[in-house]
Amino acid sequence: MSTLPVPPMFDAEFQAKLALLIAWRRDVRRFRHEGVPQATLDHLLDLVQLSPSVGNSQPWRIVSVTQKARRAAIRANFEQTNAAALHAYSGERAALYARLKLSGLDDAPVHWAVFCDHATRQGDGLGMATMPETLDASVSGMIATLWLAARAQGLGLGWVSILDPLAATAALEVPPSWKLIAYLCIGWPQEEHSDPELVRYRWQNRTHAGRQVLER
Amino acid sequence: MSTLPVPPMFDAEFQAKLALLIAWRRDVRRFRHEGVPQATLDHLLDLVQLSPSVGNSQPWRIVSVTQKARRAAIRANFEQTNAAALHAYSGERAALYARLKLSGLDDAPVHWAVFCDHATRQGDGLGMATMPETLDASVSGMIATLWLAARAQGLGLGWVSILDPLAATAALEVPPSWKLIAYLCIGWPQEEHSDPELVRYRWQNRTHAGRQVLER
Repeated sequence: MSTLPVPPMFDAEFQAKLALLIAWRRDVRRFRHEGVPQATLDHLLDLVQLSPSVGNSQPWRIVSVTQKARRAAIRANFEQTNAAALHAYSGERAALYARLKLSGLDDAPVHWAVFCDHATRQGDGLGMATMPETLDASVSGMIATLWLAARAQGLGLGWVSILDPLAATAALEVPPSWKLIAYLCIGWPQEEHSDPELVRYRWQNRTHAGRQVLER
Repeated sequence: MSTLPVPPMFDAEFQAKLALLIAWRRDVRRFRHEGVPQATLDHLLDLVQLSPSVGNSQPWRIVSVTQKARRAAIRANFEQTNAAALHAYSGERAALYARLKLSGLDDAPVHWAVFCDHATRQGDGLGMATMPETLDASVSGMIATLWLAARAQGLGLGWVSILDPLAATAALEVPPSWKLIAYLCIGWPQEEHSDPELVRYRWQNRTHAGRQVLER
């Protein structure tokens, strides 16, 4: 006879700490050089397997990028893409963009490229017939879960999207059905902040546009 | 002179409880009828504004669907889409699909349609030049954050993707630049489980495909 596990209770103290975790999660670009223990990474990897996914497809695929040549290729890709992006701005805005630190590629000890496997049969198509984009969405949700779990361990995570995704994918030699969702820098943050770097450096304030609920 | 806030410490006890939260988050389709206090929803809405977003774009837009006629339109959309989806399976698999409960639309007291505003200027394009899909990804990440925060309050959340997204969008009369990312059912769950319903009803087991890290 099997015993049912008892659902955990999440009390007010935990809820308050979770709110602090969400508030103090940051997109980190300034890392210390110290490595991250493999046991910590393994714990995070185990945990995020429990993230939601459409049809229980678990379509995320993680590549740990450690080889010097591949890191250099990603670094060059970022430099080139970032230089091109800068050209979209002019005047003060261009000057500000140029001053922003937009990746921690040089210092982060851990680089994870996160893909979505578009060829997975797992889930058998359930929930994907009319909204196939939910497969990619599942990977994005996993990354959000990872972000919080990493922060709870004191780890910073930065999502680098200033990349040519096809070139980055080619540089990493992954199966052809894998689509790049995110390139993540992970490590111990140099600083802790309660406000986003893009707010602090006056690129983009928080607004209330997303807080207004439309009634229908 | 302003005082810097002190970064919170997340100890082993919190980390363990967070792991439990991630493990016990479920895609809920079986809801009790009782309503959810507005204060609880407001707390969640405030909290998820702190989710990560590309360029700090905060592109999520939430529609609370309460009108009977609109809920009926979404319900009919689901029925039709689900019947069509069933036709993709045959034999035992079709019989199993037909037995699955795939939405809590009838019972969930709260329906939130979550959109991504593709016309937002917020973030000023930063991080979106070569990977514009990160705007949608930001919304998916917000939903993952909401899912955990809701579960910490004892609330269940179910993501319904068995919908014709354009018809659902039309039924809700939102600005034309809004793209439907998810239709969420929220309420108090009838049951608590540590395993996904799709595992329990033998549609899709968990596997280790997403746990294997490729070294590059």
